[in-house]
Amino acid sequence: MPTIVQKFGGSSVGDAPRIRRAAQRIAEARSAGFDVVVVASAMGHTTDSLIALAEEVAAHPDRRELDMLMATGEQASVSLLAMALRELGLPASSLTGGQAGIRTDGVHGRARITRIECGRLERLLSRGEIPVVAGFQGTSDEGEITTLGRGGSDTTAVAIGAALHVAQAGGYCEIFTDVDGVYTADPRIVRGAVKLPRISYEEMLELATLGAAVMHARAVLFGEKYGVPIHVRHSQKPDHGTMISRENPGMEELAVVGCALKEDLGRVSIRQIKNVVGLQGQLFWALASANIVVDDIMQTEQGSATMIAFTLDHADLAEAKQILGKELLALNDGEMSVEVGLSKVSAVGVGMKSHAGVASRMFRALGDVGIAIHNITTSEIKMSCIIDAANGQRALNAVHAAFGLGLGSNATIAMQTDCERQ
Amino acid sequence: MPTIVQKFGGSSVGDAPRIRRAAQRIAEARSAGFDVVVVASAMGHTTDSLIALAEEVAAHPDRRELDMLMATGEQASVSLLAMALRELGLPASSLTGGQAGIRTDGVHGRARITRIECGRLERLLSRGEIPVVAGFQGTSDEGEITTLGRGGSDTTAVAIGAALHVAQAGGYCEIFTDVDGVYTADPRIVRGAVKLPRISYEEMLELATLGAAVMHARAVLFGEKYGVPIHVRHSQKPDHGTMISRENPGMEELAVVGCALKEDLGRVSIRQIKNVVGLQGQLFWALASANIVVDDIMQTEQGSATMIAFTLDHADLAEAKQILGKELLALNDGEMSVEVGLSKVSAVGVGMKSHAGVASRMFRALGDVGIAIHNITTSEIKMSCIIDAANGQRALNAVHAAFGLGLGSNATIAMQTDCERQ
Repeated sequence: MPTIVQKFGGSSVGDAPRIRRAAQRIAEARSAGFDVVVVASAMGHTTDSLIALAEEVAAHPDRRELDMLMATGEQASVSLLAMALRELGLPASSLTGGQAGIRTDGVHGRARITRIECGRLERLLSRGEIPVVAGFQGTSDEGEITTLGRGGSDTTAVAIGAALHVAQAGGYCEIFTDVDGVYTADPRIVRGAVKLPRISYEEMLELATLGAAVMHARAVLFGEKYGVPIHVRHSQKPDHGTMISRENPGMEELAVVGCALKEDLGRVSIRQIKNVVGLQGQLFWALASANIVVDDIMQTEQGSATMIAFTLDHADLAEAKQILGKELLALNDGEMSVEVGLSKVSAVGVGMKSHAGVASRMFRALGDVGIAIHNITTSEIKMSCIIDAANGQRALNAVHAAFGLGLGSNATIAMQTDCERQ
Repeated sequence: MPTIVQKFGGSSVGDAPRIRRAAQRIAEARSAGFDVVVVASAMGHTTDSLIALAEEVAAHPDRRELDMLMATGEQASVSLLAMALRELGLPASSLTGGQAGIRTDGVHGRARITRIECGRLERLLSRGEIPVVAGFQGTSDEGEITTLGRGGSDTTAVAIGAALHVAQAGGYCEIFTDVDGVYTADPRIVRGAVKLPRISYEEMLELATLGAAVMHARAVLFGEKYGVPIHVRHSQKPDHGTMISRENPGMEELAVVGCALKEDLGRVSIRQIKNVVGLQGQLFWALASANIVVDDIMQTEQGSATMIAFTLDHADLAEAKQILGKELLALNDGEMSVEVGLSKVSAVGVGMKSHAGVASRMFRALGDVGIAIHNITTSEIKMSCIIDAANGQRALNAVHAAFGLGLGSNATIAMQTDCERQ
């Protein structure tokens, strides 16, 4: 029997009636002949209230203790969801991340899954039970409770799908959320943005990384690496959402499938530093050790010295500055400056590989509405421009229009007729 | 260095300011030269809100799932308390019951501690850290989360005190609560009841079992069995409370040290049953298997047959009736009836062993105020009368007065001058 891993986000389990509705959706999947593993986030704004409580108790709450505290949120929601399932006559058992075998490294607050020990999940499934797993959390090899960071419940769900090899028997992951699926651009910013019936992991990954808040990038990466199809859909609507899967024929017809805006970026620039061998490794290793995710990196020659700059989430800016300050002091070289107030607009599509003129069309679109481009970075399937934060929403609309992604575009409509459940 | 196990009840950690005050008390104990292990209950009314939520989701919440849900309450409070301690510069680590090595049987909702694996607690103490342990919970050998039932945090604290052999080095348990200590009778019912500076385990055990809500009887039993002195004191007042310890010389001067009222009792009577060998074992084993605690048991001959009656908490009455109904059906014998609306008034004192006339004085006191006695049960150190619930408070006052326990009694005042911290 194929297995679906169904993941319910915080708003899908926000109160008792919603929990009962989520139980109903799980019952429907069982009736449709699937084995089901459930992953749930904490109820509604539980996580935010817990953080507020922590900050009331301590000015600088300890990270290990924050993980202990945060983990209670999902433990409560999965036990309630299991009760609701039992009330419907379905055998269900809630499991903490640790009980479900989610093993992580020991980095509190943003741990990474190192492996999943599937024994207990498999035993429950073989007995016809529904495991209801607390998302966003795991335990380290030392038995410490860790959390995967915000959005980590998606990762839990996809990682479980991978570990159980659900795709081999026709299963997949289903992410219930408060949006309909993946759009050509954020519909709150771009009027006429349309929902994509399917998208490749690569495109979704670029979009997630570039600021489309639909799914956690790490979860998409897991899906791609282990070939787990991911169906993103609305928790309160029966409609098909967006299926994220491997690139397939027909996908390349479009140069660009979507565009995204990433806000709240900061930039660190290190000038007048001697480009000794190993310099870059040393600097970025220091940041990686603190689990700081760096966005785009640029390096240029500056006379006899070098300039290295990179963007990052502005929330990490202070810590990055402190860490690099120490490194520069040790090197006795370089001058550091930091900036805030930047955004990044991007266009994404696997078709970019085989279509010419994507870059020029994007730059022209921004130029036509008078927006200055500070930096450009590209990959095989995306093109990004760093701009002033104030220009963000106008830039996204301009790029979306330039690639004909909105309602009324022939290309998009043709693709929508292609819509069927994988 | 002697170790104190400090236990903070729900009202002592009810909000952020109280959590910070609790942290302050822990800091004081450290400054006074003690190693400290902390045990905490869930914040304020968390447990009640969680139960309400569960009942909103399911008409009959599953017990295993309720334990998963309840356990989050203490996990949240201990992580917050650890954060508050770290904020004061004290190294502290919160631990779930399972992480602290509290192993229990698998009876969800009222599990019993089977052993404590002290390794982690000892490692933390040897490093100078303060372990902050979630009370009321543990894990079974299968790794399932269990709860010890209401009041179980006291048991956790005393069990840890026993496992760490705190008494050997002059340590003890300290139970912070919202009462000053143990009184000669419940001061809300008996005006002029006075606080006892010390009391023996036996007396406290009888009082706890008989309805004095100060401490959980199981915790006192643990204290007695492993010789852990227990200091019961108010969480917001610096005063000495009541030290519960082994019987000591001087204690026998008083025939009676306190009296108690136990309310909400029910009674099950089984009449006209043939007194075959093994009958009693069979019936009470069936109740014990469901972890139903039986209060007093009476048996009398009734012609050629037998009458067996027992009192119990009226909350357990329906389940007891159902279980015994099945047993009687299998035996094809006996008639069962149940009653509610009973109370039990008791007088307790180790001095009773060597004082004559205690029984007659108690019966006369009740008779003088016109209260009918339905049943009498006695032990070496207590004397109990089952009466109508409506007479409960009057009965308690009458008995308290009859033994001269109130303010102005010479005996009690003499004992209070004896007050010193053990």
